[in-house]
Amino acid sequence: MNILIIGGAGMIGRKLAERLARDGRLGEQAITGLTLYDVVEGAVLAGARVPVRLRTGDLPAPGEAARLVADRPHIIFHLAAIVSGEAEQDFDKGYRINLDGTRALLEAVRQAGYVPRLVFASSIAVFGAPFPEAIGDEFFSTPLTSYGTQKAICELLVSDYTRKGFLDGVSLRLPTICVRPGAPNKAASGFFSNIIREPLAGKEAVLPVADSVMHWHASPRAAVEFMRHAATLDTAAVGPRRALTMPGLAVTVAEQIGALRKVAGDKVAARIRREPDPFVEKIVAGWPRAFDARRALALGFRPDGSFEEIVRIHVEDELGGRIE
Amino acid sequence: MNILIIGGAGMIGRKLAERLARDGRLGEQAITGLTLYDVVEGAVLAGARVPVRLRTGDLPAPGEAARLVADRPHIIFHLAAIVSGEAEQDFDKGYRINLDGTRALLEAVRQAGYVPRLVFASSIAVFGAPFPEAIGDEFFSTPLTSYGTQKAICELLVSDYTRKGFLDGVSLRLPTICVRPGAPNKAASGFFSNIIREPLAGKEAVLPVADSVMHWHASPRAAVEFMRHAATLDTAAVGPRRALTMPGLAVTVAEQIGALRKVAGDKVAARIRREPDPFVEKIVAGWPRAFDARRALALGFRPDGSFEEIVRIHVEDELGGRIE
Repeated sequence: MNILIIGGAGMIGRKLAERLARDGRLGEQAITGLTLYDVVEGAVLAGARVPVRLRTGDLPAPGEAARLVADRPHIIFHLAAIVSGEAEQDFDKGYRINLDGTRALLEAVRQAGYVPRLVFASSIAVFGAPFPEAIGDEFFSTPLTSYGTQKAICELLVSDYTRKGFLDGVSLRLPTICVRPGAPNKAASGFFSNIIREPLAGKEAVLPVADSVMHWHASPRAAVEFMRHAATLDTAAVGPRRALTMPGLAVTVAEQIGALRKVAGDKVAARIRREPDPFVEKIVAGWPRAFDARRALALGFRPDGSFEEIVRIHVEDELGGRIE
Repeated sequence: MNILIIGGAGMIGRKLAERLARDGRLGEQAITGLTLYDVVEGAVLAGARVPVRLRTGDLPAPGEAARLVADRPHIIFHLAAIVSGEAEQDFDKGYRINLDGTRALLEAVRQAGYVPRLVFASSIAVFGAPFPEAIGDEFFSTPLTSYGTQKAICELLVSDYTRKGFLDGVSLRLPTICVRPGAPNKAASGFFSNIIREPLAGKEAVLPVADSVMHWHASPRAAVEFMRHAATLDTAAVGPRRALTMPGLAVTVAEQIGALRKVAGDKVAARIRREPDPFVEKIVAGWPRAFDARRALALGFRPDGSFEEIVRIHVEDELGGRIE
């Protein structure tokens, strides 16, 4: 089995690639080749048990997607995207990469005349406030960003190309990924990870919203599992509605901090400094708080066990078990 | 006020144009020019009180949309589309006209740097079974045709371009138009109109489904009113969710026939021949039956008063009041 990861240098793409390369198989089948494609070249995977190829390019450029699927990868993970803030600032770039790039990929597969499994990374940004306390599987997509619009459009395309038999696609609406490794970023959602990651690394973190703010989270490890499960799932059970809200954990900031305290103690939890920011508070008030993701649960997708587990996953996977 | 109708040679486009040209005004404002654009040239409008220009072209062709909005029409009605059956048979053509054409129009407006009102004709085909008995305003779009997919995508684009301030758009999900004038067509939905139109013209009509089948209807006159209302509506009241399900009448085939009998008598109603067609029955079983269109009602859109009124509208507008 030959696998292509588009967005292979990104955070989830990289972790997914590491996992696949280490396992050497996916589901019942051995992996014969793994291609990591991105706009920038990813780092070489250490200890890979399968041949790994690194490729770079510009997905929506003419002929690019066709070249990418020329060796007919059995499974395509499409995780590449211009992120929300940038897509909002640069309207053309967002549509070009997030919509035209995805459409070029779908069309290249159709033209290649074979039917791979496609796992498309969508987002809860397809939803826009106001919404019910827990958003159900049949709630409508009314994105309030261009990024969310592009993801919602691609979900529709994936379903239509699937319905027509051109490919076998599934769109996964990922929760906010927490704890996101790396440096603190300026994204409005950054604090959800910052308040866990920074204190664990011995640094102070700023909390710009009230402790009562609730949000929908999944660990990077859970996200990788969603991808792997979607790649081997019996899609006959999914039916024609190919966009699935992934199960996450609805937790408040207070519960996040409580979990941090349990895992790392009072001293670490005390590194969070409250500094309310009305601008961030307003943005976050428009975000989903919780979902009722019963379709995905019925299809075997599994959320993290608890936010404590999410904290422990970060300590294990990113800090080698060591807390400052 | 300068008005552009894209799809001006189509059934609704034509009726809308006739109405606007006859009134010479829309809402508070006088119409200074009316351009009817279509892939084929429409017939000249008799008795127009405003200058009418007929143009033909291929909307998604490079530069075409830019030329079309070069004189900055204040109101753009976009009704042009490859219909459902053809978009399903010719995948490329459907996406090219219904998606790329619409996107080219939105982009041309953005590049022109002014903010017209755009009224986009969407469809209840954005919904796909299974659905609740009456589909509410927050029910999700899961189209089961490429046509429905293209309409759903365009709704998202119209909302995003509106949110960004590039135009002021509203998408109207039209009910099935009944009674559709002209020759019986082969569309699976054709019988809803055939069973009224043909008997009124002294001809026999075939009913391929059970009398208990319920569907969602609006007269051509109501559709024209939806368009006119959307063109002058205060869109601040619409908010960012720019796709609106138009109010129709949920009536069964039995109720349709009952209305025909009331308007035209037993002799006319007896011209309907029941000839169940399992193929059509299966298609129709996947269609929406009824909606709860309360957002549109609150915004002042009005359904036909009764199916009897729908029959009378056909007799008045298409038959000059005469029943065979």
